[in-house]
Amino acid sequence: MSSLEEKTIKTESIFNGRIISLQVDDVELPNGKQAKRELIKHPGAVAVLAVTDDQKIIMVEQYRKALEKTIVEIPAGKLEQGEDPQECAKRELEEETGYEAAEWSLLTSFYTSPGFADEIVHLYIAKGLTQKENSAELDEDEFVNLMELTLAEAEQLVDEQRIYDAKTAYAVLYLKLQEALKASK
Amino acid sequence: MSSLEEKTIKTESIFNGRIISLQVDDVELPNGKQAKRELIKHPGAVAVLAVTDDQKIIMVEQYRKALEKTIVEIPAGKLEQGEDPQECAKRELEEETGYEAAEWSLLTSFYTSPGFADEIVHLYIAKGLTQKENSAELDEDEFVNLMELTLAEAEQLVDEQRIYDAKTAYAVLYLKLQEALKASK
Repeated sequence: MSSLEEKTIKTESIFNGRIISLQVDDVELPNGKQAKRELIKHPGAVAVLAVTDDQKIIMVEQYRKALEKTIVEIPAGKLEQGEDPQECAKRELEEETGYEAAEWSLLTSFYTSPGFADEIVHLYIAKGLTQKENSAELDEDEFVNLMELTLAEAEQLVDEQRIYDAKTAYAVLYLKLQEALKASK
Repeated sequence: MSSLEEKTIKTESIFNGRIISLQVDDVELPNGKQAKRELIKHPGAVAVLAVTDDQKIIMVEQYRKALEKTIVEIPAGKLEQGEDPQECAKRELEEETGYEAAEWSLLTSFYTSPGFADEIVHLYIAKGLTQKENSAELDEDEFVNLMELTLAEAEQLVDEQRIYDAKTAYAVLYLKLQEALKASK
């Protein structure tokens, strides 16, 4: 197979924000020609598929300014600099929902928008849930409504496009697969 | 439920590129306080889960400058202005792989990074594939290797993190679910 690599000729930094930064790279293509690449740098994120002992999925409804609408997602949040992803997942679940989990495992990791951004999401499964007395402690610019859904209810929200993002769609599909695998045994 | 909406107070345009644009919005939060939101606007995209008559999945290996590495993805591409998503899906499949499909259906749509971007991916299933004589006609800055994978091979690439993006991970999981549902009948 031929090399597909694009070599960086020049990097122009356009914006350095609180969450994302933007740069435009001039690259040399495999055929020797040049092109420009618009690139977003992101610290990475975690998401948590938290399932209660009675098989309810913990979700949060929140307004997403980028979409100009409210959607329902599994709990998630950005990695702090140097933060261990699983520690971040525990922190975000507790902050957004008030839940602690006894059992943690990494389900998968994926890049969300490889065409223009390096954001990676580490998706964890959390079980053995208990809700703390003091409930959620959100960031000062964060407002969410807690929801606990059966898988059927979550699938309904997918159909209604109230669940509408990649990580949550993946999580719902994953639970559906587990159900189907159980039924096929 | 309380309103979670964030009202726009001011929009500052930072960058208007060929593919993405960046703006910073000042918003009023539900509690009356203010915050800044860093927002990427994207034209939207399509992706195609194309499966041959002998159950091979059509994939393309390509270098992603944002990730500084080569990954394996289902065929995908950006929407042109005003373009119908299904027409775009047909175009991208043909341009990237040389395949035409007789049967098309929309599997789902999802936002990839709702925390900071409005990119939506419309994911289609394409069947009844035939490969054209003249094969792929890529954009001038696009270089891909065509791959045809069994589901087991695709799962192996997920394990090896060569399949590593949300839309392709979703597509592989979807096919695994179809297989499990068939087995449970």
